[in-house]
Amino acid sequence: MNPLVGIIMGSDSDLPVMKSAAEMLDKLEIPYELTVVSAHRTPDRLVDYSKKARDRGIKVIIAGAGGAAHLPGMVASMTPLPVIGVPVKTKALSGLDSLYSIVQMPPGIPVATVAINGANNAGILAASILGVSNSDILDRVTLYKRELEDMVLNKASKLEDLKYKSYLDQM
Amino acid sequence: MNPLVGIIMGSDSDLPVMKSAAEMLDKLEIPYELTVVSAHRTPDRLVDYSKKARDRGIKVIIAGAGGAAHLPGMVASMTPLPVIGVPVKTKALSGLDSLYSIVQMPPGIPVATVAINGANNAGILAASILGVSNSDILDRVTLYKRELEDMVLNKASKLEDLKYKSYLDQM
Amino acid sequence: MNPLVGIIMGSDSDLPVMKSAAEMLDKLEIPYELTVVSAHRTPDRLVDYSKKARDRGIKVIIAGAGGAAHLPGMVASMTPLPVIGVPVKTKALSGLDSLYSIVQMPPGIPVATVAINGANNAGILAASILGVSNSDILDRVTLYKRELEDMVLNKASKLEDLKYKSYLDQM
Amino acid sequence: MNPLVGIIMGSDSDLPVMKSAAEMLDKLEIPYELTVVSAHRTPDRLVDYSKKARDRGIKVIIAGAGGAAHLPGMVASMTPLPVIGVPVKTKALSGLDSLYSIVQMPPGIPVATVAINGANNAGILAASILGVSNSDILDRVTLYKRELEDMVLNKASKLEDLKYKSYLDQM
Amino acid sequence: MNPLVGIIMGSDSDLPVMKSAAEMLDKLEIPYELTVVSAHRTPDRLVDYSKKARDRGIKVIIAGAGGAAHLPGMVASMTPLPVIGVPVKTKALSGLDSLYSIVQMPPGIPVATVAINGANNAGILAASILGVSNSDILDRVTLYKRELEDMVLNKASKLEDLKYKSYLDQM
Amino acid sequence: MNPLVGIIMGSDSDLPVMKSAAEMLDKLEIPYELTVVSAHRTPDRLVDYSKKARDRGIKVIIAGAGGAAHLPGMVASMTPLPVIGVPVKTKALSGLDSLYSIVQMPPGIPVATVAINGANNAGILAASILGVSNSDILDRVTLYKRELEDMVLNKASKLEDLKYKSYLDQM
Amino acid sequence: MNPLVGIIMGSDSDLPVMKSAAEMLDKLEIPYELTVVSAHRTPDRLVDYSKKARDRGIKVIIAGAGGAAHLPGMVASMTPLPVIGVPVKTKALSGLDSLYSIVQMPPGIPVATVAINGANNAGILAASILGVSNSDILDRVTLYKRELEDMVLNKASKLEDLKYKSYLDQM
Amino acid sequence: MNPLVGIIMGSDSDLPVMKSAAEMLDKLEIPYELTVVSAHRTPDRLVDYSKKARDRGIKVIIAGAGGAAHLPGMVASMTPLPVIGVPVKTKALSGLDSLYSIVQMPPGIPVATVAINGANNAGILAASILGVSNSDILDRVTLYKRELEDMVLNKASKLEDLKYKSYLDQM
Repeated sequence: MNPLVGIIMGSDSDLPVMKSAAEMLDKLEIPYELTVVSAHRTPDRLVDYSKKARDRGIKVIIAGAGGAAHLPGMVASMTPLPVIGVPVKTKALSGLDSLYSIVQMPPGIPVATVAINGANNAGILAASILGVSNSDILDRVTLYKRELEDMVLNKASKLEDLKYKSYLDQM
Repeated sequence: MNPLVGIIMGSDSDLPVMKSAAEMLDKLEIPYELTVVSAHRTPDRLVDYSKKARDRGIKVIIAGAGGAAHLPGMVASMTPLPVIGVPVKTKALSGLDSLYSIVQMPPGIPVATVAINGANNAGILAASILGVSNSDILDRVTLYKRELEDMVLNKASKLEDLKYKSYLDQM
Repeated sequence: MNPLVGIIMGSDSDLPVMKSAAEMLDKLEIPYELTVVSAHRTPDRLVDYSKKARDRGIKVIIAGAGGAAHLPGMVASMTPLPVIGVPVKTKALSGLDSLYSIVQMPPGIPVATVAINGANNAGILAASILGVSNSDILDRVTLYKRELEDMVLNKASKLEDLKYKSYLDQM
Repeated sequence: MNPLVGIIMGSDSDLPVMKSAAEMLDKLEIPYELTVVSAHRTPDRLVDYSKKARDRGIKVIIAGAGGAAHLPGMVASMTPLPVIGVPVKTKALSGLDSLYSIVQMPPGIPVATVAINGANNAGILAASILGVSNSDILDRVTLYKRELEDMVLNKASKLEDLKYKSYLDQM
Repeated sequence: MNPLVGIIMGSDSDLPVMKSAAEMLDKLEIPYELTVVSAHRTPDRLVDYSKKARDRGIKVIIAGAGGAAHLPGMVASMTPLPVIGVPVKTKALSGLDSLYSIVQMPPGIPVATVAINGANNAGILAASILGVSNSDILDRVTLYKRELEDMVLNKASKLEDLKYKSYLDQM
Repeated sequence: MNPLVGIIMGSDSDLPVMKSAAEMLDKLEIPYELTVVSAHRTPDRLVDYSKKARDRGIKVIIAGAGGAAHLPGMVASMTPLPVIGVPVKTKALSGLDSLYSIVQMPPGIPVATVAINGANNAGILAASILGVSNSDILDRVTLYKRELEDMVLNKASKLEDLKYKSYLDQM
Repeated sequence: MNPLVGIIMGSDSDLPVMKSAAEMLDKLEIPYELTVVSAHRTPDRLVDYSKKARDRGIKVIIAGAGGAAHLPGMVASMTPLPVIGVPVKTKALSGLDSLYSIVQMPPGIPVATVAINGANNAGILAASILGVSNSDILDRVTLYKRELEDMVLNKASKLEDLKYKSYLDQM
Repeated sequence: MNPLVGIIMGSDSDLPVMKSAAEMLDKLEIPYELTVVSAHRTPDRLVDYSKKARDRGIKVIIAGAGGAAHLPGMVASMTPLPVIGVPVKTKALSGLDSLYSIVQMPPGIPVATVAINGANNAGILAASILGVSNSDILDRVTLYKRELEDMVLNKASKLEDLKYKSYLDQM
């Protein structure tokens, strides 16, 4: 099936974070592609990927990057598609540099930014976006949120039953 | 025409910022509604608005708020629709409080966050999202970005011609 | 005995932090209940819990949450009871996100915020609040503070006696 | 009528901020006293005020301070009463110094911290605390929150009627 | 004379800051060109400018940008020339966003970052860099620093003579 | 009378802040000298001033600087005298840059740092330091603190008498 | 020998940091006392210690504290002696809370603040202060700084000789 | 061969970070020297090194330092050569102190700042600067960037082939 979401990241060192986006899309049964595109080290690939994404049938792009983190914004400058940015946590500044660089885009070129290391939410957001014209997908998002709700309700019941000391013991 | 985008804000004091989202949607010819929903002062209205938005035909929600700024995240907790959050600049913390509160959502409930006071980008992002299933709208986004490009190219030419001193004089 | 304090948290992963509130209330002999209420994953439960707390006899609510941390503020929007917020430390932003989101509430809806991970202080504050109309409880708070004082005075004596090197050796 | 709330501040320069606490207590018909107690410039008065407050019939203390902002925490160290801290905005650090200094209290000595410059919320929180044993006061808090809700609902209606341009014109 | 330094900025709104680079190069008698290149709004121009700069005889590039501020880093990704980045002060985050985005470049692609709004220092740094192979230019930098030294020594003398009150009166 | 305190600053633009140190020393009747020494623009003067201060009879140095703010630390590296650092508020970073640069000195070379723009406290601290061997000066510090106490007590009385509305009216 | 320096800390958990002040004073042969005084848990002891220090012959006080860190400032409010504050690193905010709370003192009550965890520098600063009237001590500070210089010069020589790879191998 | 680049650092504890600059210059075949110069502990050596560097044939200086981090700026105050500053990560403030202190230089004395711990980029930047008059070196920089590009392209291919799970397994 043709990928609807393109997941890209600035470096393969971002993969342990960014894989959560893929896992979420797997769960929500949304076809995607996943690769590395570095804004700084592969600028030609950046241009190529960004400009061709729409014509290749990609509907939403998820771009993760850390530090100067120019990838999401630069992709957004070369495509009309919605671009979701994932600020990856960094050693020195804990991802605050990534966050500022991704979210503080100038007027005209938005990036839909999620939490630091929030790749799984990027997957859900991509699904919500695809759901705009696809009730099935939107229903799957609703269902997923309901599963989360049930999971929390179950934990709450269990915690109320066991009391906190026993609950902690078996965590 | 039925609104496709719901623009809401936590207080009418956010309107001078949030109006830019409306102006952008006007420019991109996308029907929207605009009102005040306060997470903290009108919690019933919050629940009502969030739960009914999808059925009323709203496709994307833009929510702006400042300070504790719980509005976008709480809306997102009660709808599968994509929610775009606009952190509004605040007096004491310059909107850093708004930004953190909006972007740092837990796994399961994303908010697509744009820049502090970035309401016009929220409008463009909403259009990109609607464009996922509507080539016309996506083309309008492309066109708008091209207009921005032309505007910058014209300014660049003029600056190169006039040299910076004359250019500054007539700014 | 009917619980006077409701301790809630956004996720059971907050329990290792929030249990200190329970332990403190145990120590101060104040009956409490403890459970999970997620603002984002269980919004209906949030509304239900918040609106019924007063009628169920709860006098003070302690709510802990991390990241976007909307729980304390949202509870406060739906009850007149005093709500104590505990910002839970987070991986990327060390709880600064939690702190801002909990403390920077808009006019009309206060949350009594304690230190990052300060759940035991939330327990003491709840006791002080109950002590407003219950001299016994207030006396227990006084007594507890005196115990702390004695503990410090003993350590000071010991440190003065042993000198710092020996004291460090037996820490 | 005997004051139930003591409003104190580190300097009379904090009065333009702290008066909102008084105004809120006036509105909620709660008797209070208001004065200046400086932790650093009047340490004897600090001790005296803190130690005698309970016996004088004060039930809640609201303490505002800026910068190093030791007042709320030092009062809390010498009374079992609940102490509400108001971090006052400062010139260089915008009140972040005040906030950290007030909220980051060590285990044993909590301060119920509200937003930077959030004195009116301190007033409401004091009322909620007094309401623990006084249904009338708690009902007044509920009523006040309902008034806020109505105010927002009216603004929302008006904004929906007028559309945002006209609404902005008459703001 | 062929320009040796290319001064570019993301928007003509950066010109009031960036003109100081031009003024400094004028003072140090170094030929330069100055124009607008927006990473986000004119991505093709960005690629074109960056890739051709070396062959056009440009030796050093000064790039100023604010907010997400991707311009300096993206230029650096497409040229081996030294790129000096000037973080431009922004409204919400005072240029901290610009600074992080410009300075926190990943291994392989450095940007020589100067202070927030430090465009005149960018001019001096460009001169120092050109001075690596041009003693005349390096001597002019030395001379300029000596002029600054003399200016400060004169002010110091005057301040010591007049005493601070009179000095302040005539500032 | 021979100056006991040397007040220096990195630029005459710091004088409006640093004059408070001089005013305080005037008030406490401590002879001082005041001039400009720039670490970056007059490095020879920096070395000369720092190395000769002790032999010229200076007992304490107060050094104010903003931004990179190397002056206090560099002086401290070349004299055994106590050096008090005053971080001067800056436009972009509000003096946080100055504060970090002055206070975060490495082991071996302390700078006694006061608040951002806290020049008058630098004057008091210099007096306290001189007071270590001069009871008269220490008594003057005590007296000054008592004057502050009286001033606050008077304001407190007046505020209690007038009530806050009248007090605000005549502020 | 009578102690000239009083080293106090808010908790014995600060001892692993604060012992460096004692070690430095040992090295510089300056008699000191060391104990725990908690501003929040032992307020009476705080008052007692602060008010009696001068009469007991203490000349300089070194006070370390973390978090809200009121100890140094409160001591300074009750003594004319110079007070050196050591901000102790904290878990959530890395000592930024401690730093702000200690350094941002209001006009009238300075605290001589050193780096986060900079207890050994507090020891040197205390020596410099005592050196104001004691050439021997000041000479010891000079000597100590010279030892540091020699140590660095030796390391520099060794590094130049060994080259960095071998040097790293034997670090 | 005569060194063209001088790599200095404030302490040998910076060597594990700063060695990357040397490794990069080795790779780019640029002769360098490497040693320790402490601004605070060896101020005479600082002056000596800075003033003589140009005459000794050094063309670019790379200076790394942490905390107050005055080394790069002070060197820049005494030489017309381009100075590259490397902010070294610190324990308490993660290198934010180093970054601010190095980058926020006053007008007249620039330091070319790279990322926190970005020593290898300092090496590349030094090469780019030398490349201004040496096409060979500039070509080596281009080549190095191309190698990085190839490395990323290979990883991208491999990731696309293996899919992310297998890729992660063999990372």
